[in-house]
Amino acid sequence: MLLGKRTWNFPNKPVIISTGTVGGPLEKEGKIPDAFDVLYDENWLEQNSFEQAQQVLLEEAIDQAIKKSSIQEEQVEFFLGGDLINQITPTTFAINSKDFGYMGLFNACATSTEGLALAAHMVDSNAANFVLTGTSSHNAATERQYRYPTEYGSQKPPTAQWTVTGAGCALVAKQGTGPVITSATIGKVVDMGMTDPFNMGGAMAPAAVDTIMTHLKERNVPPSYYDLIITGDLGKVGREASLELLNQKGIHISQDKFIDCGLSIYKNDQPVLAGGSGAACSTVGIYGHFLQKIIKGKVNRILAVATGALHSPLTVQQKGTIPCIAHAVSIESGSGLS
Amino acid sequence: MLLGKRTWNFPNKPVIISTGTVGGPLEKEGKIPDAFDVLYDENWLEQNSFEQAQQVLLEEAIDQAIKKSSIQEEQVEFFLGGDLINQITPTTFAINSKDFGYMGLFNACATSTEGLALAAHMVDSNAANFVLTGTSSHNAATERQYRYPTEYGSQKPPTAQWTVTGAGCALVAKQGTGPVITSATIGKVVDMGMTDPFNMGGAMAPAAVDTIMTHLKERNVPPSYYDLIITGDLGKVGREASLELLNQKGIHISQDKFIDCGLSIYKNDQPVLAGGSGAACSTVGIYGHFLQKIIKGKVNRILAVATGALHSPLTVQQKGTIPCIAHAVSIESGSGLS
Repeated sequence: MLLGKRTWNFPNKPVIISTGTVGGPLEKEGKIPDAFDVLYDENWLEQNSFEQAQQVLLEEAIDQAIKKSSIQEEQVEFFLGGDLINQITPTTFAINSKDFGYMGLFNACATSTEGLALAAHMVDSNAANFVLTGTSSHNAATERQYRYPTEYGSQKPPTAQWTVTGAGCALVAKQGTGPVITSATIGKVVDMGMTDPFNMGGAMAPAAVDTIMTHLKERNVPPSYYDLIITGDLGKVGREASLELLNQKGIHISQDKFIDCGLSIYKNDQPVLAGGSGAACSTVGIYGHFLQKIIKGKVNRILAVATGALHSPLTVQQKGTIPCIAHAVSIESGSGLS
Repeated sequence: MLLGKRTWNFPNKPVIISTGTVGGPLEKEGKIPDAFDVLYDENWLEQNSFEQAQQVLLEEAIDQAIKKSSIQEEQVEFFLGGDLINQITPTTFAINSKDFGYMGLFNACATSTEGLALAAHMVDSNAANFVLTGTSSHNAATERQYRYPTEYGSQKPPTAQWTVTGAGCALVAKQGTGPVITSATIGKVVDMGMTDPFNMGGAMAPAAVDTIMTHLKERNVPPSYYDLIITGDLGKVGREASLELLNQKGIHISQDKFIDCGLSIYKNDQPVLAGGSGAACSTVGIYGHFLQKIIKGKVNRILAVATGALHSPLTVQQKGTIPCIAHAVSIESGSGLS
């Protein structure tokens, strides 16, 4: 089961039997509207606060994942997830009415693959039959509680990123039709001493590189094993830095095989600076868009590497560095797919 | 492995081979100073902020747990934990220099048993050999970022609780000498519509009751199976409410077998109102004090039930309810103990 120090092999190949993805207005106008099950035309979602709107995004993603599966909500044993908001309240409030065992997670934007790795491990080891895992972010809620300094109207440099408004959920099961999860590598905290919250992509790049290298080594596969290596939200700056770092370390991945969700969601003329970000960025990208490529037989193996910047507005104010992390999950063509 | 819907049985009985517990000045003057490996005389710990002081508390607890074990730090594969501070930064920064795979967790003060349950599951299922799990809280840091409203100097009613300054860690392993973890029940979110952040014990009581009842049912044992059922931080109000609720539901537990860590740490004349609380409350109580009772043969079986209030200052300001959760872990006399 444990390969090396931080990689899990899943011999029973848990199946992603369904997903649910939800987005907001900017996502609707973006490059991959087909990746979303539901798209909202405005940011309030008829709620009284943006935090409550974020909660509704996750509720809808959960509902979609269950609705699109062949199981009933009562069959789901556990929900694993979190978000960027203080005390991850949108996630908790979304689960409030549910009968799921709930394990709240926080690894910033890497929470998505933290949850997917744990969900796969639980199902693989017979600790669960059906596990839901998901994350959400809302531009207006997250930018004020997580990014810093982002008072509205202040200027941002081109290295800054834009928080995706959306939510994504995956339903992981022992059996069924869908892509299978074959392994996962849990990241460690990597901190290069960077302090600029306007360049989180650059800060997260070394964590992505560390996890990708650890994964390839511990799973003992070459980069070419994967059709695509898909990072969560490195954006333009972080993606380029990662490719260069990997290259320096002798890991050669071609430009067209190293894809970032933060560069996949919006059109080039949308005002997202270095790209999309936020806990939902990787979930809507991977669950909504890239899994479809596996389901449709266009690719066979992907490595999903969500990245997280583990600072807070307070640690930035207190002149702290930006520690970062990345967790990798390999998803492959599998159960019942042609 | 899965019993019922939310309970895990651990046939390989993971062992708590060592623990580390740290406290502050009020804890030093309390009822159980022997429960702490290290006690500090002042709250700053020579740091520039209380958040950094909290980080040092956790660092020290981790160091103590490793020092007291027979293994080297490099052998630890994973750290699981979190705290009450926004984006759980004290935990992350404490892990920053470590080579552990890191999975950040957040279920407020129930994070301790969330981590212990997951650590036991990982070791039991061969996903790890050595897992560290722990939580921390610091009165001055946590009261301003988690409780509300608690501007210093404002009056509090007697139902309010006091955040413990401390940290506790457990090192869980496949083999070794120490108490063993035999099962765990993952809680669901229970929200009775309570809105008073000055009475978190009362809000958390129904979650504790739900998890205890689910545990007894799914593990198929009577309450008398356990020598002690130990809640995390219900305090006076929550403990009494829980006992009454359990009694109403036909689960009869005697007063002397239903213990709360929040009522165990401080002397009666210390100014903690309804009792201690905070993410460290259950870890220092259970890891530092009650595990010693097992090790010394005074009790054989305990059920540790940490409870968490999953609100945030913002959700209280936005007139939200206080959703709550509790996770239960059974710890029994075991490996190598007489």
